[in-house]
Amino acid sequence: MTDTLSPTLTAFVSACRDAIGAAHVLTEPHDTAPFLTDWRRRYTGAACAVLRPGTTQEVAAIVALANAHRVALVPQGGNTGLAGGATPDASGSQAVVSLARLNRVRAIDAHNNTITVEAGVVLAEVQNHARAADRLFPLSLAAEGSCTIGGNLATNAGGTAVLRYGNTRELCLGLEVVTPQGEIWDGLRALRKDNTGYDLRDLYIGAEGTLGIITAAVMKLYPLPAASVTALAALASPHAALDFLALAHRYAGPLLTGFELMSDFCLQLVGKHFPQMRYPFGERHAQVVLLELSDNESEAHARALFEQLMQEALESGLVEDAVVAENLAQSRAFWDLREHIPLAQAEEGLNVKHDIAVPISSIGTFIEQTDAAIAQAIPGARMVTFGHLGDGNLHYNLQAPEGDDAPAFLARYQAQLNRIVYDSVHRHRGTLSAEHGIGQLKVDDAAHYKSPVEMAIMRTLKAALDPLGLMNPGKVLR
Amino acid sequence: MTDTLSPTLTAFVSACRDAIGAAHVLTEPHDTAPFLTDWRRRYTGAACAVLRPGTTQEVAAIVALANAHRVALVPQGGNTGLAGGATPDASGSQAVVSLARLNRVRAIDAHNNTITVEAGVVLAEVQNHARAADRLFPLSLAAEGSCTIGGNLATNAGGTAVLRYGNTRELCLGLEVVTPQGEIWDGLRALRKDNTGYDLRDLYIGAEGTLGIITAAVMKLYPLPAASVTALAALASPHAALDFLALAHRYAGPLLTGFELMSDFCLQLVGKHFPQMRYPFGERHAQVVLLELSDNESEAHARALFEQLMQEALESGLVEDAVVAENLAQSRAFWDLREHIPLAQAEEGLNVKHDIAVPISSIGTFIEQTDAAIAQAIPGARMVTFGHLGDGNLHYNLQAPEGDDAPAFLARYQAQLNRIVYDSVHRHRGTLSAEHGIGQLKVDDAAHYKSPVEMAIMRTLKAALDPLGLMNPGKVLR
Repeated sequence: MTDTLSPTLTAFVSACRDAIGAAHVLTEPHDTAPFLTDWRRRYTGAACAVLRPGTTQEVAAIVALANAHRVALVPQGGNTGLAGGATPDASGSQAVVSLARLNRVRAIDAHNNTITVEAGVVLAEVQNHARAADRLFPLSLAAEGSCTIGGNLATNAGGTAVLRYGNTRELCLGLEVVTPQGEIWDGLRALRKDNTGYDLRDLYIGAEGTLGIITAAVMKLYPLPAASVTALAALASPHAALDFLALAHRYAGPLLTGFELMSDFCLQLVGKHFPQMRYPFGERHAQVVLLELSDNESEAHARALFEQLMQEALESGLVEDAVVAENLAQSRAFWDLREHIPLAQAEEGLNVKHDIAVPISSIGTFIEQTDAAIAQAIPGARMVTFGHLGDGNLHYNLQAPEGDDAPAFLARYQAQLNRIVYDSVHRHRGTLSAEHGIGQLKVDDAAHYKSPVEMAIMRTLKAALDPLGLMNPGKVLR
Repeated sequence: MTDTLSPTLTAFVSACRDAIGAAHVLTEPHDTAPFLTDWRRRYTGAACAVLRPGTTQEVAAIVALANAHRVALVPQGGNTGLAGGATPDASGSQAVVSLARLNRVRAIDAHNNTITVEAGVVLAEVQNHARAADRLFPLSLAAEGSCTIGGNLATNAGGTAVLRYGNTRELCLGLEVVTPQGEIWDGLRALRKDNTGYDLRDLYIGAEGTLGIITAAVMKLYPLPAASVTALAALASPHAALDFLALAHRYAGPLLTGFELMSDFCLQLVGKHFPQMRYPFGERHAQVVLLELSDNESEAHARALFEQLMQEALESGLVEDAVVAENLAQSRAFWDLREHIPLAQAEEGLNVKHDIAVPISSIGTFIEQTDAAIAQAIPGARMVTFGHLGDGNLHYNLQAPEGDDAPAFLARYQAQLNRIVYDSVHRHRGTLSAEHGIGQLKVDDAAHYKSPVEMAIMRTLKAALDPLGLMNPGKVLR
């Protein structure tokens, strides 16, 4: 690859070799390829080099060189992003900065309930280190075996425990960041309270590497719960699920750590493609909710709490049927149902995914109105609606009509479907990216729906902090 | 006042009368005086006018006029700040913008667990509206009867429930802000998840009005707990209190909503000046911890949990003695002890207050080392150490030696005491303002201890968003 570079890029790559060692500057196509295509294989870019610094100081040195040579940088963690935020453009003039070698756990402080990790530590490793210290690191998501904490922070990742513990943002106390000028900001505070100026931490979190490169973070830990127990409840409608959520909050308060909605069609798809997975109720119901309690006392206490909750919900008619997991295996089986929905969707054929959120109180109306708009515009389109109801976050996905050619359907209708869904989200004052970020995938849609005032403030911040525009250009903002 | 104004200021004040009505533009000294001195009476400023807009649009109109006439604005809520952040300078060329008339509750959404309030709503009113909807708004602090939610947001206020619910920042989902250019940013999102760009919300929170004026907010609500129960535990040292905190977290998890440390000297001062307040144990102990559980089940459940916790702590020797409140009155009495510490301090005479935080694991060492440094430098100085141990936030206060003339002592030693305490805080990677903010009180100390990189980023943000420097100049940053 190097032989086709401009003199400027050649000089930059050569200087990077001096700065971080030639072994960590990848330029051969078979070496760089894994870094140039995103996980969903929607985007493939090119790069003058893939740089693998081993320390924060080496990251700073690379950024300083990028400034001197005016080379744009694309930071990358585990390359599991869902919006193309870590893939370079096609020009070949950008460099990928892989943070994978910054993979040290710098400190763990059980009394302070904090862990200090470098950006390249894999999420599952953070969980493991916490558990070894008898603590919980609650961030959990499908890619946890390969995504990195730096990427989680850059995209403010969500996952399955947001209801109780918040997004990645809420789990972070402090950051170390290399600024677009190549300086190191040591904001590695391990404090629950600090009111001494502007909140730089939250400015970098979720900025997808466009304002600087996160190199390390102080993350919060929690006591390990004594038990986690799940249950399923069958309901007539999303509206009933909302009332049930309020009741569950009242009974369980902060012990409620999961509240996932699954429409009947989702579970039918799972049954069709994974016949070994049993439908959990004797009769079919319009909606099924999966609840999880994390209890600091005992499994028996959690089960008793569930029994009381279900009894009231059944007696009042709110819930049509309910089952509380009797053991860990059954709890696991309930989660398996939920997790097989996207797998069943893939088996059913190509589909359109939406990662949206609306105020929780609007979810019932949102589903009704959006379903109706789609049914009118595109008869036969099948809605696969499930997600983190407790957070107001739905995966409002769409499958081609039964028997249709799915790729042809998508080619024809995807843009129209997106517009219908996002217009409806916008009317409900929701968001078109609840947990995946903007990347390059949604950069135009985000600009379309955000107010001119908000776009202007974002552009002002970008221009002020990264005046040369070298930090992940084209992502988040164009 | 008006008769001494420059032509520019006269024109500005006149234009403001047209924009928001003459009745809401105060210029007579007896009208403006309450807005020109801070609550602790440390600072008194002057103003060309005190402006009392009634709507967000009127705030925007004022800011536009301030731009046109180059007049600096000082936003003010309930004027209960502890760092002089809402008091204008002495020049008389600034205008105070009181948000008190923006006092509407715009919406409450029980299913979404959110309340939308204007900046001037008094904190206790937010709590009351939540309770009327069978919900908890957990922010609680001494000034809640007069402070406003806008001021709480501008200073990211802390209070007594941070251990479980976080600071004001963690309780806010969305903001409406008038920018320094007089535009309205409608960021009133009521979403738990939204990853569509830079986190403007958290940039304005805690910025003390230096980047724009917060006019409304969407705040989180929680289920009302069924019962709150408190207990006291006697311990030998702050180190033991840390081990006890870890044990309490393990037993109670998120039900633990308070963990306050009080040194023996604090309780002796309370006993001296408020003899009706009984020392709660038969013998004296070096440290007393107040714990609070907020339980979604019942008072009986909370008491049982406390009994188990105390039994293990007593058996292991961690705790020397313990008492669980038997009823609401006794719970109240325990909190009264804690709340009488600052009152007893005032009775004892003038003193020096520090609102510091360090990593929770460092609290024991911090107290030991700082006590020793002060004892060496200023023999006889008396340390009044108490606070939110569960958050790592101590009120590390100092009283003159017994019998000394307190004002003379302070005049001689205050600067030296601050330096000793803040140097020690800095060595422990702590903060010199955990929950009160910078205002004008700590603007130089903050700049002294922050890194040049952090100060440069803060200045870049300020210059980019408020290039004319009209938003609360001299606060947070100089």
